Amino acid sequence: MFDKLHEECGVFGVFGHPEAANLTYLGLYAMQHRGQEGCGIVSSDGYRLYAHKGLGLVADVFKQDEVFAHLPGRSAIGHVRYSTAGGNDIKNCQPIMVDYSRGSIAISHNGNLVNAQEVRSRLEQTGSIFSTTADTETIIHLLARAQSDSLIDRICEALHTVNGAYSLLFLTESRMVAVRDPNGFRPLCLGRIDGGYVVASESCAFDLVEAEFIREIEPGEMVVIDKTGMKSFHPFKETTPTPCIFEYVYFARPDSRIYNRMVYPVRKEFGRVLAHEHPVDADLVIAVPDSGMPAAMGYAEEAKLPFELGLIRNHYVGRTFIEPQQSIRHFGVKLKLNPVREIIEGKRVVVVDDSIVRGTTSRKIVKMIRDAGAREVHLRISSPPTCFPCFYGIDTPSRKELIAASHSVEEIARYVTADSIGYLSVAGLHQAVEAHGDGCKTFCTACFNGEYPVHFPRLKTDKQLGLFKE
Amino acid sequence: MFDKLHEECGVFGVFGHPEAANLTYLGLYAMQHRGQEGCGIVSSDGYRLYAHKGLGLVADVFKQDEVFAHLPGRSAIGHVRYSTAGGNDIKNCQPIMVDYSRGSIAISHNGNLVNAQEVRSRLEQTGSIFSTTADTETIIHLLARAQSDSLIDRICEALHTVNGAYSLLFLTESRMVAVRDPNGFRPLCLGRIDGGYVVASESCAFDLVEAEFIREIEPGEMVVIDKTGMKSFHPFKETTPTPCIFEYVYFARPDSRIYNRMVYPVRKEFGRVLAHEHPVDADLVIAVPDSGMPAAMGYAEEAKLPFELGLIRNHYVGRTFIEPQQSIRHFGVKLKLNPVREIIEGKRVVVVDDSIVRGTTSRKIVKMIRDAGAREVHLRISSPPTCFPCFYGIDTPSRKELIAASHSVEEIARYVTADSIGYLSVAGLHQAVEAHGDGCKTFCTACFNGEYPVHFPRLKTDKQLGLFKE
Amino acid sequence: MFDKLHEECGVFGVFGHPEAANLTYLGLYAMQHRGQEGCGIVSSDGYRLYAHKGLGLVADVFKQDEVFAHLPGRSAIGHVRYSTAGGNDIKNCQPIMVDYSRGSIAISHNGNLVNAQEVRSRLEQTGSIFSTTADTETIIHLLARAQSDSLIDRICEALHTVNGAYSLLFLTESRMVAVRDPNGFRPLCLGRIDGGYVVASESCAFDLVEAEFIREIEPGEMVVIDKTGMKSFHPFKETTPTPCIFEYVYFARPDSRIYNRMVYPVRKEFGRVLAHEHPVDADLVIAVPDSGMPAAMGYAEEAKLPFELGLIRNHYVGRTFIEPQQSIRHFGVKLKLNPVREIIEGKRVVVVDDSIVRGTTSRKIVKMIRDAGAREVHLRISSPPTCFPCFYGIDTPSRKELIAASHSVEEIARYVTADSIGYLSVAGLHQAVEAHGDGCKTFCTACFNGEYPVHFPRLKTDKQLGLFKE
Amino acid sequence: MFDKLHEECGVFGVFGHPEAANLTYLGLYAMQHRGQEGCGIVSSDGYRLYAHKGLGLVADVFKQDEVFAHLPGRSAIGHVRYSTAGGNDIKNCQPIMVDYSRGSIAISHNGNLVNAQEVRSRLEQTGSIFSTTADTETIIHLLARAQSDSLIDRICEALHTVNGAYSLLFLTESRMVAVRDPNGFRPLCLGRIDGGYVVASESCAFDLVEAEFIREIEPGEMVVIDKTGMKSFHPFKETTPTPCIFEYVYFARPDSRIYNRMVYPVRKEFGRVLAHEHPVDADLVIAVPDSGMPAAMGYAEEAKLPFELGLIRNHYVGRTFIEPQQSIRHFGVKLKLNPVREIIEGKRVVVVDDSIVRGTTSRKIVKMIRDAGAREVHLRISSPPTCFPCFYGIDTPSRKELIAASHSVEEIARYVTADSIGYLSVAGLHQAVEAHGDGCKTFCTACFNGEYPVHFPRLKTDKQLGLFKE
Repeated sequence: MFDKLHEECGVFGVFGHPEAANLTYLGLYAMQHRGQEGCGIVSSDGYRLYAHKGLGLVADVFKQDEVFAHLPGRSAIGHVRYSTAGGNDIKNCQPIMVDYSRGSIAISHNGNLVNAQEVRSRLEQTGSIFSTTADTETIIHLLARAQSDSLIDRICEALHTVNGAYSLLFLTESRMVAVRDPNGFRPLCLGRIDGGYVVASESCAFDLVEAEFIREIEPGEMVVIDKTGMKSFHPFKETTPTPCIFEYVYFARPDSRIYNRMVYPVRKEFGRVLAHEHPVDADLVIAVPDSGMPAAMGYAEEAKLPFELGLIRNHYVGRTFIEPQQSIRHFGVKLKLNPVREIIEGKRVVVVDDSIVRGTTSRKIVKMIRDAGAREVHLRISSPPTCFPCFYGIDTPSRKELIAASHSVEEIARYVTADSIGYLSVAGLHQAVEAHGDGCKTFCTACFNGEYPVHFPRLKTDKQLGLFKE
Repeated sequence: MFDKLHEECGVFGVFGHPEAANLTYLGLYAMQHRGQEGCGIVSSDGYRLYAHKGLGLVADVFKQDEVFAHLPGRSAIGHVRYSTAGGNDIKNCQPIMVDYSRGSIAISHNGNLVNAQEVRSRLEQTGSIFSTTADTETIIHLLARAQSDSLIDRICEALHTVNGAYSLLFLTESRMVAVRDPNGFRPLCLGRIDGGYVVASESCAFDLVEAEFIREIEPGEMVVIDKTGMKSFHPFKETTPTPCIFEYVYFARPDSRIYNRMVYPVRKEFGRVLAHEHPVDADLVIAVPDSGMPAAMGYAEEAKLPFELGLIRNHYVGRTFIEPQQSIRHFGVKLKLNPVREIIEGKRVVVVDDSIVRGTTSRKIVKMIRDAGAREVHLRISSPPTCFPCFYGIDTPSRKELIAASHSVEEIARYVTADSIGYLSVAGLHQAVEAHGDGCKTFCTACFNGEYPVHFPRLKTDKQLGLFKE
Repeated sequence: MFDKLHEECGVFGVFGHPEAANLTYLGLYAMQHRGQEGCGIVSSDGYRLYAHKGLGLVADVFKQDEVFAHLPGRSAIGHVRYSTAGGNDIKNCQPIMVDYSRGSIAISHNGNLVNAQEVRSRLEQTGSIFSTTADTETIIHLLARAQSDSLIDRICEALHTVNGAYSLLFLTESRMVAVRDPNGFRPLCLGRIDGGYVVASESCAFDLVEAEFIREIEPGEMVVIDKTGMKSFHPFKETTPTPCIFEYVYFARPDSRIYNRMVYPVRKEFGRVLAHEHPVDADLVIAVPDSGMPAAMGYAEEAKLPFELGLIRNHYVGRTFIEPQQSIRHFGVKLKLNPVREIIEGKRVVVVDDSIVRGTTSRKIVKMIRDAGAREVHLRISSPPTCFPCFYGIDTPSRKELIAASHSVEEIARYVTADSIGYLSVAGLHQAVEAHGDGCKTFCTACFNGEYPVHFPRLKTDKQLGLFKE
Repeated sequence: MFDKLHEECGVFGVFGHPEAANLTYLGLYAMQHRGQEGCGIVSSDGYRLYAHKGLGLVADVFKQDEVFAHLPGRSAIGHVRYSTAGGNDIKNCQPIMVDYSRGSIAISHNGNLVNAQEVRSRLEQTGSIFSTTADTETIIHLLARAQSDSLIDRICEALHTVNGAYSLLFLTESRMVAVRDPNGFRPLCLGRIDGGYVVASESCAFDLVEAEFIREIEPGEMVVIDKTGMKSFHPFKETTPTPCIFEYVYFARPDSRIYNRMVYPVRKEFGRVLAHEHPVDADLVIAVPDSGMPAAMGYAEEAKLPFELGLIRNHYVGRTFIEPQQSIRHFGVKLKLNPVREIIEGKRVVVVDDSIVRGTTSRKIVKMIRDAGAREVHLRISSPPTCFPCFYGIDTPSRKELIAASHSVEEIARYVTADSIGYLSVAGLHQAVEAHGDGCKTFCTACFNGEYPVHFPRLKTDKQLGLFKE
């Protein structure tokens, strides 16, 4: 899946470490896959906050060593973002940092609020001004309006007004607060490092900074860290957690632990169940690299077919590639993938990918494999058809762009010119996840079946989403 | 193998296509793995030459669309480089373009001349001045001194003076000339596109621009292309070809065809033979991604062990990563790789890599796998011990830095803290290559056994190499 | 006067012209001397606002032609700034643009509010959050809180809460509003261009865009421009205007018309009166270029002494000059000025400058002239001693840095090592201004005599100013 | 004179000072007016040479402090350039640094060789290759071909082959050599600093670095500086010196000493003689700033007319100004100058400029002054009509672009719409120069009267010049 259709954000925070900004930088670097459009770090030296943000990759925004000299202090929070809400503009980069009556505060947000527009309108009616188009700014305004005396109470007051998905990190001069929404839509985990604390969207960030993983922050939990240590609160009414299952399918790095399970074996299990649900008489299995690799390996193992590297990925595609405008050709997926003819020629090939969004990329890949001589091309997708947009922080296109929203599986097979197509079922998805450990068993699968765990205004249709996305 | 120790260069050329510079750009992009330090394109519109060069990746040096407006014409040659000879300076970027008595000429070179210093001294004695430190400039001077009337004869005259490795592309106002040295050290292949011709170091570049692969340019062959078509010459005394076998081991992209064989199956076969030569009682096989993947898969198949993605690669490592200087830790290989504990824990793990240079990276990887809980770590290398420096275009360190030059296999195992180590034999290398098609059977294996096919001045020792590399 | 001690800001706006952003760019370019730290433009196409801002000079921030493609519409306002209040950060660049309940609004401000901190604290108490450190943001918040129905009334409501100096431009989707505070501290003038309107801090901006000067906007006047034309209001209680006399002394370009008088002849008259007040037996008069030129010429004419270019200015000093850090010397003023020995040697020289701030630069200049052989050096200053900081928009240092705040004229002469020193008197200042036309006769001369026309909180001492300046 | 039509180059060198590169940087900064397109420094630490070059102003090319860390050593030479010969490309930036049989050498050149093309063709015939289009590269090749044993003899051998204008600085590992051509077309002077030596095109560079001016290097003199001290040679046949008189008219900074005279008083004297030669009944005298200032002051003094600053210059014009392409107006000279209406209105104005090239700028200035209300505009030029191109280092346009080459003085007056025009005569030029000290009395005035002191190939016509300039 190469289209930038399934991206979101990542947050990272450190409290009580002499190299807080450096560690945050490394943590963001490890989670670069969660957002490539912009990033930022805000640090605190106990007296005031310091910020550096920019559009681009972590390694570029923080490439000047002197940047770190301007981010002093023993605590810091950071953010990598893809523009889930709000346009692509530096002012929408996070952490957002502001002054209000109680001092300064910074916020990093992964997720999406479903009632941000409503709340924003109400706030504007009574005099609030907004300087970004991000839903996250709403939380800041609510916080500034909150009348409670303690920061914790003010945060609770503010969060009781908003609905939707939020894994949040707040930083003040002297405290770091981590909150996960009651549904726990997006992951968030807690670790220790040299006597200090770290919080990250994914545990792979802890591995890089050599922090120790403690546990995930629970849905509905608020963790407050200051120099007296860590305290945990559960300020929200309890509800059935519904973390995003798509983290297992595509988002999270395979070496991360999410919802109490390692991603890689779960992802491989998707392939095994998929082989069981959609077997096919074939000669070999290949993956759409790199996200399709584990599932393809699982499929091959279960189907007892050879697994081959039939599509080679150009290692440099992460970079911005400017296709010459005057070019007579459109190169698209060829820039990223190239088939190995010797492997494919004359063969019946199973191609495993994690999901299909618009179908255009899959169509090109099937064509590419067929052009390389494949006799048959059987497409296997390690998740159910994506039929519904996500309103909880994944940047999916609107329904009318989702091919599965308006086409049957057979029509999709015909469109992508595959000899057959097979999607993992929702039940298969659950079965695979549960096969790997004792973690959460209830999930948000709204993008597959339209069962949205948190309601949103009726007008929150495709049009509304478009509005959010500018 | 992450250390930048085995890099060289890549060349690409187009003749007779309205989008010559664009195609060259794409061709270089597909061969970015052959050199990341700098790149350049020279085009010709039939009247004069135009150049654009820069330090950095292809997508960065050519990121401004207007660059192409300044590279008009229907022919172009390009170059991606790693500094085999000459320092890291924009003036050493290629193609080198100069004016001499017959007009303008540009040159792109992959390889390394072994008598460049001697020839250079001789030329300087009689008044030549050098503005770069690259060995390639020597060829240009010889060309300018040559007395023959025709370009072809002048090129022959010049090349008869130099020894070593060269896959060359020349571009004049009206012609493109491709030459491969008599030993054929480095690859070079020929293709067609829309009635024009293309030449590239690797065939994967043809795939991207959708050119048709015709054949490899033979060792000792000179191909001259102008508006009357293509002509082939064999101006050198015939000799046994000795192409670099390391292209199969590490360099070339797995989807390229080199010396008449696809790289991927050859590389996988290395793993199979390696499993045969160095079996071990283990639970699973993992690769050092991405270069070790095919051999690891071959090893696993032959050893009938499960193949797993036990080390996850950060996709963004291609980018420059500035490690904060004030950091108390040195992150090194952790920035690039992270083990998947669940896969490794309590297991006897075979780790397959393509080669060992200094041993420091292998040592870190072994440690990382052991820290993730592996019970045993068995290192398997899909090539023989690298004991000798390359003088034909690969940027290896000097002998004293090559761990295998001064340590036995047992000592290396101890140094990298592996439970066992196994290198593919030179015979196994040949056996694996020959198992895949009818290509060349004689190779340069000097880096493994010190048998250098082309002699060089006695002083061309490590010291001399160092001199070349600045 | 080379020290960046007397800088402020400049505003420019256009309504009803197809090239609104371009004209604003040119207008800002003409007023670059009013602020070199940052600049910005916000335009409106009738439906929404578009912004581009950046740190640096106008020609640099707007050097990409495509910038203008992203600033469409027939109205625009712009700003050049020196950091009077708020630090040197892109987020403090103006125009500030925000969304509030009534839509979007942008604001450009020249001047300084004296009760911004108080108002800000009050706003923060009731839930406002501030994203910049600029006093200007206060106005935006007041505007958002205002309950009146019409924009005009809301602006009036907001401005009645703040005190101090403000020449303001507001831009909404469909209107441009210009306001000058009741005292008229800072200049603001109105012009016409091709059927549209322009507003600028200085008339020299009109000359460049070839707009017709109509008149100055009066102290306390609000001018509202929309597609129905221009309307004028006087919403404030009338008060004695006290425009800043320092605009005549140093700030404004000599080719501008300020408070109904051309600056150049006024500035020259300062020199004439100064010659009258502080005559001296000398051989020639030289200026500290370029700001001291007109006064020096006036002095020379009145004193019937030859005027010479005895100090030559390096034309490239406007640019950032990075003095090598390892330098053993400190070059300071030498980088900007060089004396012409032949002119000065053996002579009794009168040197005319516009003002003295810390005295360090004057000391270097006197030394430089003496080193070039002057027999006597008589310093003449075309304004009274600067003894008090400005709280109305000029970025002066705090009192303790102003040499005249704590030293007598004789002590200053001794410190700068001049043979004599002579400052223009406050009376002389008025006399010179009034000699040139029928403009305003009451001025703010607080920096000379401490008579601040608008009061401010007692704590608004040097410390407070420092706080404002970060 | 604002058109970039009269620019050349500047050279600076230091030998025997611990901060050689820093001093060179400052020296170039002081001579930035001699070339704004590119600059460079080559330093030597006694063992090898180090270079840094770039397109742009000195303060920009050397803005990174670390640059100086890469330019170690106690000797250095530098260059600021305008592209007299060779296009605007970084490869044409100087100093040129090369390796040849005797080691490394760098060269900085101010001037232009008249037989460079001939010599270049001859060198190319026998095998030299050229990597720049600059005439200076010819000298390097001749040097590399020279057979003499000593560097001095080789330089002499090389320079005996070329004709034209050259003030040269050579730097080798251990020596600095300064040479001025026998005619002494371009200035070059020698100074001392802290026991070391400095060489510069203009003495104003010595003032900035606080070096002591010793004397000018004589026409035909070669000065060799090494650790044993300084030696002077006169290797060329003596000839009548013909330094460029235009240095007095426009080029040199007024605070420089050129050909044994300060520039400022000479330039002012031009105005006095001009007033004598071309008196006019007028009300005031104004200058075209800044180059016309001294002559205007001299004119005013002699004519006993008031001198006023009637045209105000925008201080920021030195910077690149990108005029918006979509602009409906062409702003041209208005961006740089603005008239002061009050001064000009209703007056008979004498406008003094230093020279007229194409006439288009003068025409705009006259129009601008008339639009500001002048009753009469009398143009006075402080040099004779520029009728012939310069082949000795000034970048003048070809003859057909020089308005005076094809138009009478009356026609020019009509074209520029002046009420009268008056040029200083060649005799007046000499008279003014000789009135100021005992310096050189013979000059190159070829651009005024076509008497070229050094002959050049017949084909060296306008076309040829164009060829040189690309």
